[in-house]
Amino acid sequence: MTAEAAENGWPLEDRGAAFGDGLFETVLVRDGAPLLWEQHLARLARGCRMLGISLPAREHLERPLVDAGEGLSVLKLILTRGSGGRGYALPDTSEPRLRWRLAPFMPSPERWRRGVRVRHCRLRLGIQPALAGLKHLNRLENVLARAEWSDDDTAEGLLSDSEGRLVEATCMNLFWQRDGILETPRLDRCGVAGTLRTVLLDRLPIREVDAFPQLLEQVEALWLGNSLQGVWPVAWLDDAQGRAVQRWSIGPQHRRLQAVAHDALGFPSRLDD
Amino acid sequence: MTAEAAENGWPLEDRGAAFGDGLFETVLVRDGAPLLWEQHLARLARGCRMLGISLPAREHLERPLVDAGEGLSVLKLILTRGSGGRGYALPDTSEPRLRWRLAPFMPSPERWRRGVRVRHCRLRLGIQPALAGLKHLNRLENVLARAEWSDDDTAEGLLSDSEGRLVEATCMNLFWQRDGILETPRLDRCGVAGTLRTVLLDRLPIREVDAFPQLLEQVEALWLGNSLQGVWPVAWLDDAQGRAVQRWSIGPQHRRLQAVAHDALGFPSRLDD
Repeated sequence: MTAEAAENGWPLEDRGAAFGDGLFETVLVRDGAPLLWEQHLARLARGCRMLGISLPAREHLERPLVDAGEGLSVLKLILTRGSGGRGYALPDTSEPRLRWRLAPFMPSPERWRRGVRVRHCRLRLGIQPALAGLKHLNRLENVLARAEWSDDDTAEGLLSDSEGRLVEATCMNLFWQRDGILETPRLDRCGVAGTLRTVLLDRLPIREVDAFPQLLEQVEALWLGNSLQGVWPVAWLDDAQGRAVQRWSIGPQHRRLQAVAHDALGFPSRLDD
Repeated sequence: MTAEAAENGWPLEDRGAAFGDGLFETVLVRDGAPLLWEQHLARLARGCRMLGISLPAREHLERPLVDAGEGLSVLKLILTRGSGGRGYALPDTSEPRLRWRLAPFMPSPERWRRGVRVRHCRLRLGIQPALAGLKHLNRLENVLARAEWSDDDTAEGLLSDSEGRLVEATCMNLFWQRDGILETPRLDRCGVAGTLRTVLLDRLPIREVDAFPQLLEQVEALWLGNSLQGVWPVAWLDDAQGRAVQRWSIGPQHRRLQAVAHDALGFPSRLDD
């Protein structure tokens, strides 16, 4: 296992760069301590199992944290299968390659409080159970979806799969409350199983469901969340052309899920209206 | 546009390495001259249009050829969106990054003559029209499919999409003859539109069709082809567990398509039985 610091890039023949043959994690770090670290390690381990990549020792994965310093930062870890193999064929033995980058991070308290505007994306996610849930390096779908809007006013885009089911947002998971019950899309066909989503599924009674976008007309609250940004209530929903289709008043019904998430991340959990 | 030689790898933050945000071409080069070059350039240009990446000038793309020398080699060109952007969001301005590698190449005359053994893969390709046909850097599906077998006797694996339609092999396109008519799978949902496939569609009456694997029971000849290896007749077809399901005698019916392909690539076009 070669673990090297941020200065080092990727060799030309690295399979991560050639085929997206690897995984990544984006971790919130506070005063040098990684948040939801067990969940990040578990997702990385699952990805390694599914792709047949050796999981680096925990000490290698934690090494970058010594440089994190005070305050909030984001640690991006990228793990590739390394070099070798003929074309797509796996090398007989491979030495995974780990790289990382640390950067200062600032969340958006205004978005926590007032909520955000999101839109439906035109792009549909391909259905691929062999990769579903993983944070792998094949992210062109996310890049294309994110390129569908450029106004700063739109915070995220909702993605459905090729059969029309709601899945996630471009870099966040999706949650809603319907008839008092919390739900989130099942992620067994595509999408990234966020670490904050895992925590919320552990701590709250949330049903994993198959749902189509029409269902959003019946929900009392809609949220987006991930382990960096925490939870944003959705206040405005636009269609894929940017026309308003729905709005929600942000109120007490939004605060419970947010409080549980923010408690896990060390963000303010009381965001009174 | 930064064009650098083979020694140079990728900066840590390159979007190709981070997200597979880029394209590649694998080109057969004979005595310094690239084969099917116009087709490679056209596919790269289409990919750049679809991903919103600036196409490098032709002279940049041709620069590596001066080092090719005598004989057969393979030129791998990788073009990424470069660095920048916040997360998946595109940078305001981006400078694509071009890298290449030249390596000696040797085709397999035995496979041309006697044909090959192939198997069906278990993995199904996700349906993604926004990327269909492109040789982009998100290739985990191909890597996983290629990992389904490791015996040297099996030359390729056939891939179907998530709805069961035949698409391609892991790194070759698929052709067959049925009732005297040449056919190849339509590639508007997924798969890579090979440059040799483009040439064959231009020069022979080949129908692009939607087809399911059962159809192979009725074909008189089955081939795999790409711009590096030329055309391999398929002699044995196994199921995804490696059990024999079908076989074809390699004979004169296999030689016409092969001759047209090999003529385009400068490979022997008379492979008498």
